[in-house]
Amino acid sequence: MRANIKVHLSYDGSAYHGFQIQPSAVTLQEVVEKALSRLYGLDVEINFASRTDAGVHAREQVINFWAPLNIPLERLPRALNGLLPEDVVAFHAEQVAPEFHARYSARRKVYVYTIDNGDFPDVFRRRFAWHMPRELNLEAINQSTPHLIGYRDFRCFQAAGSDIKDSHRSLYRLQVTKKGQFIYFLLEADGFLYKMARNITGTLVDIGLGRRKPSEIPQLIQKGDRSLAGPTAPARGLCLWKVIY
Amino acid sequence: MRANIKVHLSYDGSAYHGFQIQPSAVTLQEVVEKALSRLYGLDVEINFASRTDAGVHAREQVINFWAPLNIPLERLPRALNGLLPEDVVAFHAEQVAPEFHARYSARRKVYVYTIDNGDFPDVFRRRFAWHMPRELNLEAINQSTPHLIGYRDFRCFQAAGSDIKDSHRSLYRLQVTKKGQFIYFLLEADGFLYKMARNITGTLVDIGLGRRKPSEIPQLIQKGDRSLAGPTAPARGLCLWKVIY
Repeated sequence: MRANIKVHLSYDGSAYHGFQIQPSAVTLQEVVEKALSRLYGLDVEINFASRTDAGVHAREQVINFWAPLNIPLERLPRALNGLLPEDVVAFHAEQVAPEFHARYSARRKVYVYTIDNGDFPDVFRRRFAWHMPRELNLEAINQSTPHLIGYRDFRCFQAAGSDIKDSHRSLYRLQVTKKGQFIYFLLEADGFLYKMARNITGTLVDIGLGRRKPSEIPQLIQKGDRSLAGPTAPARGLCLWKVIY
Repeated sequence: MRANIKVHLSYDGSAYHGFQIQPSAVTLQEVVEKALSRLYGLDVEINFASRTDAGVHAREQVINFWAPLNIPLERLPRALNGLLPEDVVAFHAEQVAPEFHARYSARRKVYVYTIDNGDFPDVFRRRFAWHMPRELNLEAINQSTPHLIGYRDFRCFQAAGSDIKDSHRSLYRLQVTKKGQFIYFLLEADGFLYKMARNITGTLVDIGLGRRKPSEIPQLIQKGDRSLAGPTAPARGLCLWKVIY
């Protein structure tokens, strides 16, 4: 008898080619499935909430899988950590209803993008932040965010080549805050198109640098042309913060 | 004509066999001297404030060297960073008096030791903290620190095999504070014996775990026997915070 088990993971994505398994590259899915399969002594396949890209991190990624309950769930994270590399940490496990699916049951996801705005990079956070030493006009950035919040067609922020039919998403929160030399972009949506968080961040940085105006955002959205929006912010600054069910 | 130049460095020490040059291991001194020699196009040798051990980090290490003033000092850190690996960052440069020596002119040094006291490690700080998930009695630790502050013979906290003649040092500050899941041990002294900061931390952790009593510290110091004090805390948690001139 197997039960449906949900586990929370955090990871430093620097060394991985993203979460989703790939034939000839080290991925988080592969590393986690191997550890679980070794722990249970049988093949375990996982579902996961978000397909984070190469170099993207997670404070709280959610997975689920079917496995026997012979390992007490309160001891599962620690047992799993013993088999995982140091850059992946399991920190919560619980049994969930059979219909729970880490991806399809998710209602919202929260991502945080971190910019290191110091003159010199903070060496201790260099893997988790985009070092951008130029002055950013936060007022202009904050004038832009209301144009992005809501139910909108985010096609212009979708990586070129994606073939998703419906590019409408609901962006519930987009908060930009500065703390010390760091600027945090918090994005909460019911779903994210491919590279959408990094493309929105890159466009907002363009606005902060004075390369675009806040008032251009509605046009960008209306035209739906990726080539008109800003550049993709580097993967290292992005972190899957939380998945809401 | 060469001038005496002082530079501040921060680094993630994880990949290095300490600061001081060694014949067959990668050290920070080697990496920094190579970058400076390339930058100036001539051999540059450096003095440095503190010989941090393998795996120990620095928020602010201080070096000095003699070099021509053909590179404007306000541009030196950025130019140097272009030649340094990503885990070493120069962030300040100034000309100093000829008699300034990064080590011999230093009056005090501040180290901070970080313990990750969470049930599960914070994956983003795993390189910079000792994960110690057991409960630590901070009250007992804080009862111990007054016995350590002052001008004392710290022989019992000196790594076995050291051959320093005078093991007296003045410990000016020893503050233990908890913030979230992290506990910080700040030590400020006129000098540190070999592994002294890590041995004091290890002994205080023993006290926090109830393995020793605060009242044992005076005896430890009086006996001066390394084998009676606590274990050496792991290198990864230690960071050279600041050098005071």
